Amino acid sequence: MSKYGAYVKFTAKPGQRDTLSDILLEAAAAARTVKECEVYIINLSDAEPDAVWVTEVWSSAEAHKASLNDPETKASIARAMPLIAGVESIPVVPVGGKGL
Amino acid sequence: MSKYGAYVKFTAKPGQRDTLSDILLEAAAAARTVKECEVYIINLSDAEPDAVWVTEVWSSAEAHKASLNDPETKASIARAMPLIAGVESIPVVPVGGKGL
Repeated sequence: MSKYGAYVKFTAKPGQRDTLSDILLEAAAAARTVKECEVYIINLSDAEPDAVWVTEVWSSAEAHKASLNDPETKASIARAMPLIAGVESIPVVPVGGKGL
Repeated sequence: MSKYGAYVKFTAKPGQRDTLSDILLEAAAAARTVKECEVYIINLSDAEPDAVWVTEVWSSAEAHKASLNDPETKASIARAMPLIAGVESIPVVPVGGKGL
């Protein structure tokens, strides 16, 4: 089965980027015990001061979809939603390399 | 010092994506012994059949720049160049998460 990856760009509402980043870092900490989540890296951007990019790799697209129904994930999303002005995602298919 | 990250999109010339992907996977294998290179994941795209995306994390921007002068890296670039129609990069600043 193919892995599932994505570069997800969250654009925070003005002044909310660091709070949003903290919530996503907490979600990443929770993901450490989730075997199907292989990578969940939080990134900022010098060029886009309201952006938080998340680099995700999951064992499969199904595992990623299933994670969205996890109660802890749902609670994180509920806290993050009011801080978010927009979301864009670039889906990719990880095939190998260092860090998988 | 901040880490350096990037999502680098290589657009291959028609019919060259898989050869390009193989060269990048070889570069990723070589990167396994490079401490400053923390992540180097090769990705394909269902939506963009000529694209190869590389997810990179380096210990610093300086370490990334220095890597481009490594003889093995230069040799890989020389082999890949004739296969590449275009390169775009989204630079990011990794701040934490699973996979670092």
